[in-house]
Amino acid sequence: MGERYVELVEVGPRDGLQNEKETLAPEVRAELVDRLADAGLPRIEAASFVNPKRVPQMAGAEEVFASIHHKEGVVYAGLALNERGYTRCVEAGANEVRYAFPLTDEFARRNQNTSVKDAARLAVRLKELADRDGVRFSVTLSVAFGCPFEGEVRAERVLEVAREVAAPGPGEVVLADTVGVGVPSQVRELVSGLREIAPDGTAVGCHFHDTRNTGIANAVAAVESGASFLDASVGGTGGCPFAPRATGNVATEDLVYTLHGMGYSTGVDLPALIGCADWLSEKLGKGLPGRLHKAGPFAPVAG
Amino acid sequence: MGERYVELVEVGPRDGLQNEKETLAPEVRAELVDRLADAGLPRIEAASFVNPKRVPQMAGAEEVFASIHHKEGVVYAGLALNERGYTRCVEAGANEVRYAFPLTDEFARRNQNTSVKDAARLAVRLKELADRDGVRFSVTLSVAFGCPFEGEVRAERVLEVAREVAAPGPGEVVLADTVGVGVPSQVRELVSGLREIAPDGTAVGCHFHDTRNTGIANAVAAVESGASFLDASVGGTGGCPFAPRATGNVATEDLVYTLHGMGYSTGVDLPALIGCADWLSEKLGKGLPGRLHKAGPFAPVAG
Repeated sequence: MGERYVELVEVGPRDGLQNEKETLAPEVRAELVDRLADAGLPRIEAASFVNPKRVPQMAGAEEVFASIHHKEGVVYAGLALNERGYTRCVEAGANEVRYAFPLTDEFARRNQNTSVKDAARLAVRLKELADRDGVRFSVTLSVAFGCPFEGEVRAERVLEVAREVAAPGPGEVVLADTVGVGVPSQVRELVSGLREIAPDGTAVGCHFHDTRNTGIANAVAAVESGASFLDASVGGTGGCPFAPRATGNVATEDLVYTLHGMGYSTGVDLPALIGCADWLSEKLGKGLPGRLHKAGPFAPVAG
Repeated sequence: MGERYVELVEVGPRDGLQNEKETLAPEVRAELVDRLADAGLPRIEAASFVNPKRVPQMAGAEEVFASIHHKEGVVYAGLALNERGYTRCVEAGANEVRYAFPLTDEFARRNQNTSVKDAARLAVRLKELADRDGVRFSVTLSVAFGCPFEGEVRAERVLEVAREVAAPGPGEVVLADTVGVGVPSQVRELVSGLREIAPDGTAVGCHFHDTRNTGIANAVAAVESGASFLDASVGGTGGCPFAPRATGNVATEDLVYTLHGMGYSTGVDLPALIGCADWLSEKLGKGLPGRLHKAGPFAPVAG
């Protein structure tokens, strides 16, 4: 075949919905997860095991997991930000725990009431637990392309922290453009840099927001620099608390369209995924920022 | 410096507004042109010299040109699709005539009541006239990345026609993704291919629509493959008659953000350009699809 496979991690049910005004019931979120799995998404971030008082949209993570019709071969992941969240996540039946922390102290303090140093230590600790429990584990480095509080985040800084959390490898490290400020040249520098310093067997992923319309360009740059998986959110759901009019994560279907057009395989059924975006748009009672599900995939009109 | 300059051609006043429901008066369109020139756009497609019965949004092209406060060093271009339009355009005071035709017979018949063969001949004829009159001239090859009627447009076909219209060079050839279906790998193939076959001194440009969210990724691919200029439309105005829910041209300010972030220079003042997008959004009485003018350029918030 010669086709290169890019793994897509669907984060709509978590990062997407967490930033929407409308709160969907756990059963509806589980149905979204099932629909996405049916559309061929190999890995889905299904719920967030954080304090529901802080993120009410994510309340009922256990219920979401209990309602999912688990499909053979699909990875159902949950987000955890501390050891308690980790335990809840594993007990709920997730086969992957995803942990995230920001690369600047100011964001870390505001978002997770911690420091970069402590958060990185926790990453190493959670990795140990995951290895013990036999679940997949990934670490996301937030604001790797710029911080809304501290501004520029130097590449050396990103790689220094990445080296620390990747050390217990082989594992997964995700570079996240949390506020959507990155550009392709920066993506290439960081992805290539991370691949060089990370232990053999470390998988590098990226997580982009389309806040400034750079999401697809950044995703292409990431894949071409050796990232093996990409986060994306059906319909481009989500947003950014620091840019009230901003759009959300890069839309999964926009990304699938681009990747397939470039000859990559993803295993995703594009029309089925567009159906998920339309379904979610209806559930949320609003248009979603993704573009492909509105325009349709390319199909010449009848003469 | 080492910075590479990318010339941006602002097509909002023409390709953008031509596809908007709201028709703006010629004086308002002229004010938009002036605002864009003040924001540093070096070249602006200001009006369309086609039959106003066919495109009522573009009526009053002469009035637009008469109302513009022509600025030293700025190129004010007009679109013409035939010899009569060419003459009107030059007489109105345009210092560049832009001519466009589709690469498929079906689209050519429906859009311009012509064939690709005849349309290509006309390109050569108009180039002669432009050389005689001392005005700049550029040829846009529409649907170069796919046709809504005929589907795939083979690269060999694109390059064959491009060779013909570039032969009288040195001139300008623009590859246009009229319906927004192209992906970066295709852009690289076509731009590199065109640079190889075109006579020395031919400038290669690209024109992307963000219909399927590939506009910025395609623009980056074009510039990196040697395109020296890019069309773009303030606020991402425009649309696509074949995809009613589709967004329009790639937004100029989104493109400027990306290019500047990657170390290219454009001469454009980004905050001033965002001001133009906000102003136009108000004049059109609706939100525009561009993303940057909503999110704002990257500026860390005060602690």
